[in-house]
Amino acid sequence: MNQPTDAMDTNVLQRTSEHLSEKYSGIFSPETVERYVFESYTTLSRTAKVRTHLASTATHFADNRLRALGQSQGSIDSPVPQVLFVCVQNIGRSQIAAALLADHAGDQVEVRSAGSLPGSDLHPLVVEALDERGLDLSGAYPKPLTDDVVRAADYVITMGCGDACPVYPGKRYLDWGLTDPSDVDLDGVRSIVAEIDGNVRTLWAEIRG
Amino acid sequence: MNQPTDAMDTNVLQRTSEHLSEKYSGIFSPETVERYVFESYTTLSRTAKVRTHLASTATHFADNRLRALGQSQGSIDSPVPQVLFVCVQNIGRSQIAAALLADHAGDQVEVRSAGSLPGSDLHPLVVEALDERGLDLSGAYPKPLTDDVVRAADYVITMGCGDACPVYPGKRYLDWGLTDPSDVDLDGVRSIVAEIDGNVRTLWAEIRG
Repeated sequence: MNQPTDAMDTNVLQRTSEHLSEKYSGIFSPETVERYVFESYTTLSRTAKVRTHLASTATHFADNRLRALGQSQGSIDSPVPQVLFVCVQNIGRSQIAAALLADHAGDQVEVRSAGSLPGSDLHPLVVEALDERGLDLSGAYPKPLTDDVVRAADYVITMGCGDACPVYPGKRYLDWGLTDPSDVDLDGVRSIVAEIDGNVRTLWAEIRG
Repeated sequence: MNQPTDAMDTNVLQRTSEHLSEKYSGIFSPETVERYVFESYTTLSRTAKVRTHLASTATHFADNRLRALGQSQGSIDSPVPQVLFVCVQNIGRSQIAAALLADHAGDQVEVRSAGSLPGSDLHPLVVEALDERGLDLSGAYPKPLTDDVVRAADYVITMGCGDACPVYPGKRYLDWGLTDPSDVDLDGVRSIVAEIDGNVRTLWAEIRG
């Protein structure tokens, strides 16, 4: 039990809750925001090995989830298509797909990713292979699939996570069969990135219509 | 993707949300209740292998979490000590401890359990070893550690789950070192149950004061 760190985090999370309550004033109650912040923190704590920056990562996660929830309820504007990529650990495949689509589509889509059983850290070879393409994953982190991000999505793309994703009407669901980057070396990861890139380009063409 | 089941579940969860909103009327907004119901469902979906009864399990989980949240905020009465047991998968050690304390203390404590990385089903030998003692685990299910149940707890007992549990002031934290039932046969599980029973009796004596 790392008591001092956790006690400090509680203070940070309390301030985060106040800050996000202002940001989402008129959309969500302060109680809802606080619940999102603290539950996001506890959820990430369960799988995070390194606890540095956990409070700021949880803040980002809670903010993103609140935005998704508001978008799904129509209380926050959602001017571009929302795309969600889901794999098992959210340390490889779904992170690759999210980074590539964001790169191709820029601000013409809003991209999220999640995992059914989130890992503790991004796959280092995945980070390296995307870095070779000029894509920076330093802000990315593994996170569990939550109901809010599924609801916000127009497109849900699953990769190896079985039935973990709730099915709601009015969304386009796709399932991509891909090799798990955890099973291969850097060259193998590069091939997986290339394969995902092909899928992502096809998806982006479909989204543009 | 099991679309028909999931579509049916959505209807059940919607009715559940309405029912729990009435139950918690004046304590939580219908929005908060609906969030708890749907997030609890998605959370259990991620790790559940068998999806039968998932909606009713999620209903129980959401109800229990809302009660914990209300208790921690003082809006729901909490007349007896609240005890939370946390292990890794919530399929063995924490379930054993929860069942034994509930058996010894009856309605003199409120007992919860959770896991840092919840498994898909209770350990069959654990179910068998507790059945030999007349304790029925048929209603038990693995569930992740959430912020609400930590907040509600007066006593938090961790078993092998490291730093996964947030530390709040004013609670009694204990850590029990125990063999994982997954690593042993039925005789081994019986020994673990006996060891946990000794710890639980000591804890119950401490709680009674």
